[in-house]
Amino acid sequence: MTSDRKASVNLTDNQSGFERSCCPITNGLDIFGDKWTLLIIRDLMLGKRRYQDLISSPENIASNILADRLKRLQLAGLIDRRAYQQNPARYEYVLTKKGKDLKPVLEAIIGWGKKYYPDTMVFAPFNSSNSC
Amino acid sequence: MTSDRKASVNLTDNQSGFERSCCPITNGLDIFGDKWTLLIIRDLMLGKRRYQDLISSPENIASNILADRLKRLQLAGLIDRRAYQQNPARYEYVLTKKGKDLKPVLEAIIGWGKKYYPDTMVFAPFNSSNSC
Repeated sequence: MTSDRKASVNLTDNQSGFERSCCPITNGLDIFGDKWTLLIIRDLMLGKRRYQDLISSPENIASNILADRLKRLQLAGLIDRRAYQQNPARYEYVLTKKGKDLKPVLEAIIGWGKKYYPDTMVFAPFNSSNSC
Repeated sequence: MTSDRKASVNLTDNQSGFERSCCPITNGLDIFGDKWTLLIIRDLMLGKRRYQDLISSPENIASNILADRLKRLQLAGLIDRRAYQQNPARYEYVLTKKGKDLKPVLEAIIGWGKKYYPDTMVFAPFNSSNSC
């Protein structure tokens, strides 16, 4: 029974072209459903653009995870990578419209987080003074 | 330099009592930053209560992952577990106020998902007919 059910669901998914289901939440989580991706989006919204700035955030993201998430975000069309220097080439990262449109998602999480974890503090724009 | 910086940040985190940082987004993601937790919250909001109903969602969550996430959600105060039958004991799961308050987060993700993945469809309440 179970394998029949799964086979049936997978067939439906394949037909509709979705990896897991047609739910918009599921398709969003397939891109940013982890502990790090929305923090990178947060940092880019706050004005960070360069790898060294992104890796300096207080959550201490590992370099291989940051590099992986940046590639995934670029592939999903949420960020663009632009060269700001040649020889050696250096790149910066900027949100696309699709990436910027995640702002209401971050705002909703902030609203929930501040309500239930009142000691949390919203980060100030990059280059301002943060206290954390 | 790097190790000094990390030591300093960790000291600050320990002093403030946060696992990763004082950012409300980070603290939210420490609870629901994965591909599954918000789907369980979605299902509970849609009216599902029992393990067999939760595991039957089209995303095909594995039983060990579902059990783990339910325990974590209970520990974080987002759901309550209630016995609805004795001998053998059977339990159902209901959202607390803290869990229900994630509704704006799901709504924001739905808004973004529907915009960028227009073939997605919001799931109907449990026991209604879903087409996916």
